[in-house]
Amino acid sequence: MTDTVISSATKEVVIGFERPFVIIGERINPTGRKLLAAEMAAGDYSRVKADALAQVAAGAHMLDVNAGIPMTDEPRILAETIQLVQSLTDVPLSIDSSIIAALEAGLAVYKGKALLNSVTGEEERLESVLPLVKKYGAAVVAISNDETGISEDPDVRFEVAKKIVHRAADYGIPHSDIVVDPLVMPIGALGQAGRSVFHLIRRLRTELKVNTTCGASNISFGLPNRHGLNSSFLAMAIGAGMTSAITNPLHTEEMVGVMGGDVLMGHDAHCAAWIRKFREPSAEGEGAGTGGRRGRENRRRGGGGGGAANGGSEGVQAAASPTAEVVNG
Amino acid sequence: MTDTVISSATKEVVIGFERPFVIIGERINPTGRKLLAAEMAAGDYSRVKADALAQVAAGAHMLDVNAGIPMTDEPRILAETIQLVQSLTDVPLSIDSSIIAALEAGLAVYKGKALLNSVTGEEERLESVLPLVKKYGAAVVAISNDETGISEDPDVRFEVAKKIVHRAADYGIPHSDIVVDPLVMPIGALGQAGRSVFHLIRRLRTELKVNTTCGASNISFGLPNRHGLNSSFLAMAIGAGMTSAITNPLHTEEMVGVMGGDVLMGHDAHCAAWIRKFREPSAEGEGAGTGGRRGRENRRRGGGGGGAANGGSEGVQAAASPTAEVVNG
Repeated sequence: MTDTVISSATKEVVIGFERPFVIIGERINPTGRKLLAAEMAAGDYSRVKADALAQVAAGAHMLDVNAGIPMTDEPRILAETIQLVQSLTDVPLSIDSSIIAALEAGLAVYKGKALLNSVTGEEERLESVLPLVKKYGAAVVAISNDETGISEDPDVRFEVAKKIVHRAADYGIPHSDIVVDPLVMPIGALGQAGRSVFHLIRRLRTELKVNTTCGASNISFGLPNRHGLNSSFLAMAIGAGMTSAITNPLHTEEMVGVMGGDVLMGHDAHCAAWIRKFREPSAEGEGAGTGGRRGRENRRRGGGGGGAANGGSEGVQAAASPTAEVVNG
Repeated sequence: MTDTVISSATKEVVIGFERPFVIIGERINPTGRKLLAAEMAAGDYSRVKADALAQVAAGAHMLDVNAGIPMTDEPRILAETIQLVQSLTDVPLSIDSSIIAALEAGLAVYKGKALLNSVTGEEERLESVLPLVKKYGAAVVAISNDETGISEDPDVRFEVAKKIVHRAADYGIPHSDIVVDPLVMPIGALGQAGRSVFHLIRRLRTELKVNTTCGASNISFGLPNRHGLNSSFLAMAIGAGMTSAITNPLHTEEMVGVMGGDVLMGHDAHCAAWIRKFREPSAEGEGAGTGGRRGRENRRRGGGGGGAANGGSEGVQAAASPTAEVVNG
C-alpha cells in the first residue's frame, strides 16, 4: 500500500494502490498542436483555459501542463500557464518540461505539492531534477530509461526505475513520492509491448512498491480505432496494478476503460461513480444538457461523506433491480 | 500451455493459453427471449437461423445452442436446433442444457467434437454428465458450484473446479477437455466480484492448468452502460488469463474488449485481426457495406498461412506510419 499525495492550494489527490485510478489530463501540451503552440507563444491562453475546464469537467483529477514550444522563453510561459490554470481550477497539476529551468520556474509559482514530470535514469537528469524535487517538496514522475535508451526488456526497465528510487532516497525523497512511468511502447511495432508493460507494472508495484503512470495512448500509435484499444489497455493496466495515467479524459472510450477498471478492482464503492457517469439523464428528469451530471461527477473525489453515502445507496438500488437500467439508471 | 480442441464436421477451434480468445456466441438461447421460445416451441427456427448467421458474421468462433423452453420436448428441439445450425455454419457448437436427456440427444446428432455445457460439482450432475462426455469424446464446461451453492470465496470455487477435474480423470477425461467457468457474479451486488474472478482465473490457469470460459455479461447486471463494463471486464479477464467467453459478438464494445485483449496479450500477430476489423472501409475502396470485411474476418481462424502473412504485412505497414490511421488504416 503506497499513497502518493499531490495537492493544489485547496485540494489533495492521492494516487494509491487501493484508490480510484487518477486521470491526469494530457491536453495542455503544445507538442504536435501547432495552433495551441502559436497562441501560447503569443501570450494567448484562451485555448489553455478551455482545455483546462473541459478536462476537469470530463473527469480529470489532475492536469498535466507543458509549454514546450521551440524558440520561446519556456520557463516564463510554463510559469504563466500554471498560474492561469491554478486560478481556474483546484485540481493539482503535473509540471511537465524537459528543461530544468522551466521545471523550477513552474515549481516557484505553484501553490501546493506538485507532480514534477519528469526525471529519468540519466545521470545528468537525476542530479538536476532530484534536488528540485527535494527543495520544493514535490513528487516526481520517474521514466524508466537511461543513457542507453529504452530497453525492450521490462526487467532492464525495472532496474532503471530501481536506480531512480534509490538515488531519490539519497536525497531524502521517499519512494511514495515517486510515480514510475514504465514506458508504453506502440504495440503495432512491438507485439509484446502489452505483456511487457503489464509485467513491469506488477513488478514495480509488488517489489518496488511505487505508484505508476503512463502515456496510455502510445500503445495504439499507428493503429485504427485507437480509442478502443486505449480503453482495453487502460482496463488491463489497471488490472495489472497501474494507479494513474496521463491521458485524454474527453474520450468516452478511455473513460470507460478507466472507470470500468475502477469498478472491477473494487475501487468504485457501490459502483457510484460509474452509475453517476452513465445512468440515463431521464432518470432524474434532466434534459439533454449534461452540465448537471458533470458537475456532480467532478465532486467524486471532492470529499463529502454525504455525497458518497448517497452514491452508495443509488448503487445498491440500481444493482438490486434487474430493470434498474431502464427505470432507475 | 493447455489446448482444448472443439470441432464441427469440417472445422477445428482451439481454446488455449497462447491462442486468440474464443468467442462463443450466446444468442441461441430462449431463456428470457419469449418470442424466440414461442417460435422454437412451434417448430419455427427462422430466428435461430438468423441468430446463427449474424453471430458468425460478427466474429463468433463457436455458438452456444440452448433450447430450454418449459413444457416442451427439449431433447427433440435441441437436437433439431443443432442439426439446423450445423447445416448453416461450420463453427463448432456448445450444447447447452440442464437436462441430461437433452444433452445426450444433442450429442447423438452432433457432427464433430462438441463442448458440452455443463457439469457442476454436484454429485448427481458429475455422475450423469461425465459418462456422456466420455462416451461421445466431447469437451465439457465445468461450473464451479456444488450442492452448497456458489461460494463468494474464489478459493472455495477453485476447490470445486479441482474436484470436477479429478473426477473427470477417473472417467479418463483429460484436464485439457475441461473448460472451467469460474462464475462471474454481478459487481453491482458484490463489489469484490471482479477481483475474485480474476484471482480465480489466475489460479485455474497456473495451478489446475485448465482453460476457462464465462458468461461475461453477468458482471454488469443491473448497472447502466452494460456493454461498456462488459468490454472492460473482458479485457481484464483476458489479462488475467481467461481463454474464452460465452458472450454476444453483435456488440462492438464487447468485441473491442476481446480483440483489444488479444492484441495486448500478443495473441493477434501484427494486430492483423484488429486492423481488419477496424480500419476505415475507404482504405480499400469499399463502399458502405461491411459484408466484405466481415467475410474476411470470419476467415481469421480459417487456417491459410497466406491470409496471415498478408495481414501481418498490413499490420507492420499501418503501425510503421503515424498517418496510417488516416491514409491506410
